[in-house]
Amino acid sequence: MAIVTPAGTDSLVTAVESVPLTQLPARGIPVPSSVSPAARAIIGAPRPEPLVYPPLDDVAGWKTLVASQDAGVAAMLGAWPVDAAVTVEDVDVDGVRVYRVTPPEAPDGRVYLDLHGGALILGGGEICRAMAVRTAAQVGARVWSVDYRMPPDHPYPAPLDDCFAVYRALLREYRPEQIVVGGGSAGGNLAVAMLLRARDAGLPLPVALVLTTPEVDLTESGDSFQTNLGLDPVIQGSLMAVNLLYAAGRDLADPALSPLFGDFTKGFPPTLLTTGTRDMFLSNTVRMHRALRSAGIAADLHVLEAAGHGGFLGMAPEDADLDREVRAFVDAHWSG
Amino acid sequence: MAIVTPAGTDSLVTAVESVPLTQLPARGIPVPSSVSPAARAIIGAPRPEPLVYPPLDDVAGWKTLVASQDAGVAAMLGAWPVDAAVTVEDVDVDGVRVYRVTPPEAPDGRVYLDLHGGALILGGGEICRAMAVRTAAQVGARVWSVDYRMPPDHPYPAPLDDCFAVYRALLREYRPEQIVVGGGSAGGNLAVAMLLRARDAGLPLPVALVLTTPEVDLTESGDSFQTNLGLDPVIQGSLMAVNLLYAAGRDLADPALSPLFGDFTKGFPPTLLTTGTRDMFLSNTVRMHRALRSAGIAADLHVLEAAGHGGFLGMAPEDADLDREVRAFVDAHWSG
Repeated sequence: MAIVTPAGTDSLVTAVESVPLTQLPARGIPVPSSVSPAARAIIGAPRPEPLVYPPLDDVAGWKTLVASQDAGVAAMLGAWPVDAAVTVEDVDVDGVRVYRVTPPEAPDGRVYLDLHGGALILGGGEICRAMAVRTAAQVGARVWSVDYRMPPDHPYPAPLDDCFAVYRALLREYRPEQIVVGGGSAGGNLAVAMLLRARDAGLPLPVALVLTTPEVDLTESGDSFQTNLGLDPVIQGSLMAVNLLYAAGRDLADPALSPLFGDFTKGFPPTLLTTGTRDMFLSNTVRMHRALRSAGIAADLHVLEAAGHGGFLGMAPEDADLDREVRAFVDAHWSG
Repeated sequence: MAIVTPAGTDSLVTAVESVPLTQLPARGIPVPSSVSPAARAIIGAPRPEPLVYPPLDDVAGWKTLVASQDAGVAAMLGAWPVDAAVTVEDVDVDGVRVYRVTPPEAPDGRVYLDLHGGALILGGGEICRAMAVRTAAQVGARVWSVDYRMPPDHPYPAPLDDCFAVYRALLREYRPEQIVVGGGSAGGNLAVAMLLRARDAGLPLPVALVLTTPEVDLTESGDSFQTNLGLDPVIQGSLMAVNLLYAAGRDLADPALSPLFGDFTKGFPPTLLTTGTRDMFLSNTVRMHRALRSAGIAADLHVLEAAGHGGFLGMAPEDADLDREVRAFVDAHWSG
């Protein structure tokens, strides 16, 4: 999905005026020859028109934005082939809507708790459901995907509360060593924040965690928010308006909102992290990796050449390469 | 050391004219708040004047360039404290000058074969010797550092021949499981090319390999050669003139010159790779990592936030963080 700043290049102008330390001339960046033709097509595609975000208190405006963005993604997902042998149950788990996906021949004793992406406002409902089916095929296991509540009606802490409630419920049905947690983008934020809360609440941690280009710093302090501006084919500007909508007045730097700033020295699961060199969340991802490594946590980093946020949207062989990494990682941890 | 294109922004103009696919406006990139004050000082420091490379056949011009660049680095290294308890022997190993460094209490049965950086023309002699002492402290082991011949007098294959000769000699004194090979920048090129040659010659491989921001693609096909142009505080332009000097008419894409394009499926040692998000060799490094992983080789990637080529030149806590990763990696592999 395309998510763009309201202000377009205004954020660039602000940067120039405040700390003009590295001046770059106007330039055209060629599509590199170092990636597959499918990846080149994505990198070279025309960028969508910038979104305009409504004021924070314009609830109707936000709902219109969410509906139109989700409709675009849902139309794309509708074209995906669906394996008829997969079962999907819509269930209520302690008050939270969860999609339970069981692929054919899913092994017993393995479950993947999936927290969807979408900038903390998008990707719920049918999109969450469709993505869960895809995730189940990727990881070759049962998936529980949380259709957590979101802004504008349900800002922090409602989304995190929902994820936490489902994790707690999952622990009643599975042992910790049977559970892998995964989150992409905004789901990566919730996954890390949820596990920090679980750990601090004395709950056991899952056997492993998968973070795909995670939005772990809502303050957007990472360098790639500037350096990859205009280069990422997917995220084309600051998401600060959405972050503020989610925070609803809370401090964005609170580790519950920006879990990059959490304390990982008290324990955290082995983690696989993925990003791309053009990803606006490149800094988020590499900083999260270093935070885990500095705390002594096993953590594997994989970076796709020239890929933006979300890799190449599942349409390039490079994505399949990362899928294999994820599959090997979760298999190794589920196998003990 | 500062290595800059002869043409300055001309390479940008060329890019614009050939494939103008992603247009970026002129902008100022602020020094990020996401790194240490020491790192911020390096990122925000004024960039040196661009170098002007001589024509390929101007041997005297190249020698003058090398001498002046090396003198600057040597002056900087002269200020480093030297541990008097370290012994350094200048030895001839099958016709190649090698510095053998023994730090105090170096364990027996561990040796680190170090191939120095410097764009394949710089960093020999006293610089190589001083860097070897530093490497020995980093890895806590004996170091053999190869003062390989270089252009303009000795282009490919002389530098690689020298490294290969020393590796072969090292195998007479140490078992493969006692040997770790390391190379940074141009030394990373030689390290990978040397091990591909060794493997294809039927020699045993070392227990592990360390590649710090390796120059494994002399064709410079990676995306970061464009995207990080002007952002990397150390490498400020294409090194193509030097690459052509080294190649002396050979095909730059030959895996012996650009070992990224080698075949790693026939075996390669476990490898640790480091780079930074502003590194001109970011693409080199992540592509090398993916090439190894795709071939089923154990390979760990570490990426420093906002760091250019060579991290923060050993002057920031972020460098110490990577040093700890390298130390843990080599210790784990030496310990079997």
